[in-house]
Amino acid sequence: MDRVPLERKVLSENDRIAADLRARFLEHGVLCLNLISSPGSGKTSLLERTLEALPRQDRVAVLTGDIQTENDANRLKRFHFPVKQITTGGTCHLDARMIERHLADWRLQDLDLLFVENVGNLVCPSSYDLGEAAKIVVLSVTEGEDKPLKYPSIFFKSDLLVLNKIDLLPYVPFDINAAAENARKVHPGMEIVKVSSLTGAGLHEWITWLEAKRKAHKSLVETAS
Amino acid sequence: MDRVPLERKVLSENDRIAADLRARFLEHGVLCLNLISSPGSGKTSLLERTLEALPRQDRVAVLTGDIQTENDANRLKRFHFPVKQITTGGTCHLDARMIERHLADWRLQDLDLLFVENVGNLVCPSSYDLGEAAKIVVLSVTEGEDKPLKYPSIFFKSDLLVLNKIDLLPYVPFDINAAAENARKVHPGMEIVKVSSLTGAGLHEWITWLEAKRKAHKSLVETAS
Repeated sequence: MDRVPLERKVLSENDRIAADLRARFLEHGVLCLNLISSPGSGKTSLLERTLEALPRQDRVAVLTGDIQTENDANRLKRFHFPVKQITTGGTCHLDARMIERHLADWRLQDLDLLFVENVGNLVCPSSYDLGEAAKIVVLSVTEGEDKPLKYPSIFFKSDLLVLNKIDLLPYVPFDINAAAENARKVHPGMEIVKVSSLTGAGLHEWITWLEAKRKAHKSLVETAS
Repeated sequence: MDRVPLERKVLSENDRIAADLRARFLEHGVLCLNLISSPGSGKTSLLERTLEALPRQDRVAVLTGDIQTENDANRLKRFHFPVKQITTGGTCHLDARMIERHLADWRLQDLDLLFVENVGNLVCPSSYDLGEAAKIVVLSVTEGEDKPLKYPSIFFKSDLLVLNKIDLLPYVPFDINAAAENARKVHPGMEIVKVSSLTGAGLHEWITWLEAKRKAHKSLVETAS
């Protein structure tokens, strides 16, 4: 049985909406970042730390995806930035239409930075463009250093690898150099930051990457306009 | 765009092959167990510990699934039981046809126990029956105690929850009682074993569960024949 033609149709429809979102993000100067990882690698904790570190006047918002529950939105709302939960009800990834629908009552001109936290999954989200400026893959050091080789697509497509939970390095058999090497086998020159959302170690590296990305995106927007 | 009719056709075709596999497993007295978890929760390590603990004369085999790489099969082969890697090339789950194809040159009458290690993913594998006698979900304590609520389907469909990496409990913010409670909210009465594949803690509980399952399956096979 051949699923390919329908898959292709679904993906091309998704790409059309994603291209439209990307154009709108560019028009309004919104940097959209799509965070992807396995369940429990620490996307939400990283976002908690990030929202905590950003100035309250920053124009930042979060769309957070899950199969079920509003847990993540509830965790993120306490930082007083706009947050919306997208529950997919069974679908293993966000798609561009879900993003479009959940943005409908937000004014993009009021935003500079939009985080999209995808469903916890290293496979399906990799195929769905959400109109983001960049994908970011989060890998926790408890997951094993071979994951970039086993799930190459998402490591290839992401601009940045966040190696999370480095506080656990003394307690797990994880070779952080081998992990970085594997990531760069799949994606030569891939940027990597090493953080612990629990202790805060390395977070300055992540924030530095983020601020550089925001600055670069601002230049791009100014050139485009 | 409506994907439902094709999904349904793919799933019903899968169910037909799975039913056929289940009948063949029963006919030949093979207990098939389908292990499912996020990437890096420790399915392969649990299998390494299990194969190490089983008598060499036991008639055990493993099919291990991944998007890419033969790493897991290579790790498992050193225990001298038959092991085959299934690389899905992008698909986020195993399906019954892959199992059927990879079993083609094994004689089921030579086997008593078949482990299937699914692709690392808490979502997609839950929809695909592989003809197994039971699904087993593995959750590592680094992943957060809310996972059963966020990914209810796989916790509902699994006979057993293996809470893995309990050696890391002192270092992670994980409430093991809340995790068990969440699992039993989704699946009342769910059996749970707590193990560390690294230190070996709790593995006797897992082996006890496994031996009880093998015994019960043997009775079932004898009744059926």
